[in-house]
Amino acid sequence: MTSGFERPLDTSARPTGRTTIRLCVLEGDAAHEADDVVATEEPLEIRLVDGIPGALPTAVALTMRTPGDPDDVELALGFLHGEAVIRGAADVAHATYCLEPDITAEQRWNVVTVTLAPGRTAGDLARLERHFTTTSACGVCGKARLDQLVLDGYQPLPTGPTIAPSTLYALPERLRAAQGLFADTGGLHAAGLFDAAGTLVAAREDVGRHNAVDKLVGWALREGRLPLADHMLLVSGRASFEILQKALAAGIPVVCAVSAPSSLAVAVAERFGMTLVGFLRGERGNVYAGAGRVGR
Amino acid sequence: MTSGFERPLDTSARPTGRTTIRLCVLEGDAAHEADDVVATEEPLEIRLVDGIPGALPTAVALTMRTPGDPDDVELALGFLHGEAVIRGAADVAHATYCLEPDITAEQRWNVVTVTLAPGRTAGDLARLERHFTTTSACGVCGKARLDQLVLDGYQPLPTGPTIAPSTLYALPERLRAAQGLFADTGGLHAAGLFDAAGTLVAAREDVGRHNAVDKLVGWALREGRLPLADHMLLVSGRASFEILQKALAAGIPVVCAVSAPSSLAVAVAERFGMTLVGFLRGERGNVYAGAGRVGR
Repeated sequence: MTSGFERPLDTSARPTGRTTIRLCVLEGDAAHEADDVVATEEPLEIRLVDGIPGALPTAVALTMRTPGDPDDVELALGFLHGEAVIRGAADVAHATYCLEPDITAEQRWNVVTVTLAPGRTAGDLARLERHFTTTSACGVCGKARLDQLVLDGYQPLPTGPTIAPSTLYALPERLRAAQGLFADTGGLHAAGLFDAAGTLVAAREDVGRHNAVDKLVGWALREGRLPLADHMLLVSGRASFEILQKALAAGIPVVCAVSAPSSLAVAVAERFGMTLVGFLRGERGNVYAGAGRVGR
Repeated sequence: MTSGFERPLDTSARPTGRTTIRLCVLEGDAAHEADDVVATEEPLEIRLVDGIPGALPTAVALTMRTPGDPDDVELALGFLHGEAVIRGAADVAHATYCLEPDITAEQRWNVVTVTLAPGRTAGDLARLERHFTTTSACGVCGKARLDQLVLDGYQPLPTGPTIAPSTLYALPERLRAAQGLFADTGGLHAAGLFDAAGTLVAAREDVGRHNAVDKLVGWALREGRLPLADHMLLVSGRASFEILQKALAAGIPVVCAVSAPSSLAVAVAERFGMTLVGFLRGERGNVYAGAGRVGR
């Protein structure tokens, strides 16, 4: 592989992986505003070009990731290696951010094109393509993912009840107490559904955090409880775009996480009138969006 | 939706979500064998049948999850709800474990079929299908995923060097010290690559733990360092099937995790001669596979 990495022209937009957010810090009964830094979450589209004259790029993967340069190119190469499309540097002619005319300036940091070495081809890509969602019609960036949710028919959630901070503080211990598998194994994702008074309605566990939320929503669907207005979701780990999207689909207005949210999770919450609380530990929590639902 | 859930015939195989593992516990300079329970990780195939006479099941998703009854059915329903295929219980006629003749007894707990209510159809499933990998030729169970790795050409890794417990104990702090984004955001997955002496070679961060490993492997590929024999991988969270598969592809013989491994991660390590260390914290660690590489 040649070392020549082409760069997008607008280096002022070079991603740092950090997004600064204005939030409301809860401490006991008090609250104050502050700035905080969250990890950036943006889609990366990986395109592949066979090493034969006239070959055209094929989008083979779309993954939500924290952007960085040259991390994005390495992510594309590592992904293709894990999928056995490339075995080593000799299989690759170029790996660069995309500069093609169909990509707008704001999306250039979100598309990496890997061109295989002369004579190398990827073979059957159908297997690979199925690993990932296809590109949204709106383009490849976080804002486009939000726009797609609007196109899919999602509406801002109703305001619903006001939640006292003390109610929020009680949730993590109640979820932990319900985690039978965690108690046995010491490590598992959990998701808990609570009513507006903070009573645990249902809890589910899984090796995958998205699965734990899917299990909860599937339970509520079977019980005829959707949409889950006036309910709260607590996840034991981080809050990502997909967690917020699933909560939005289920109509849950308040999402809490024991750990950090991503930038795109905050953006979904802001766009759709959801409350997002992160770092909910002890008598503390950070309200990243929808602080109006948190009463004092 | 009717409440009639059909069960597979062999209820003695009903999954508990727990797998008991024999392991080697490291404590300071000492080591002893013990039994431990890890969370089960197995594939779940979700099949969908349109609500029209003669409609055939279509496999729409394959996700790695912790099995449980009725959690699996709820997971399937919740997944389909998040993808906007179903909106409520009225869209579903039946949701059951699969009892069709093409499914062997051992796989019956790993396939859920959702039949839509009369007149309801899923529409364009192409979008949905692309979210997930297709079924392996070997069938739908953890053992089949291992068999598929053998068919894909993966070989057991060479023995390589012996690692002292004290070398392992030093790794988490070295990775944490390299996490610039974690320091700023307080929550992010990390993956670190170390040589056999425990020196940090490279570290990467991401909102997705698989991405952090892909970035490391992509970096090594660009540098011409693959396969990474005599190296160790440390992940800041849990060790799943996919993390082990990516390490195997990169030739990394020792994988360490700060938190718990899944049952299938342990199985991959055992099958391919890899060392898997979990709960690596302070002067402690659990060696789930390949204890022969850990010297005392």
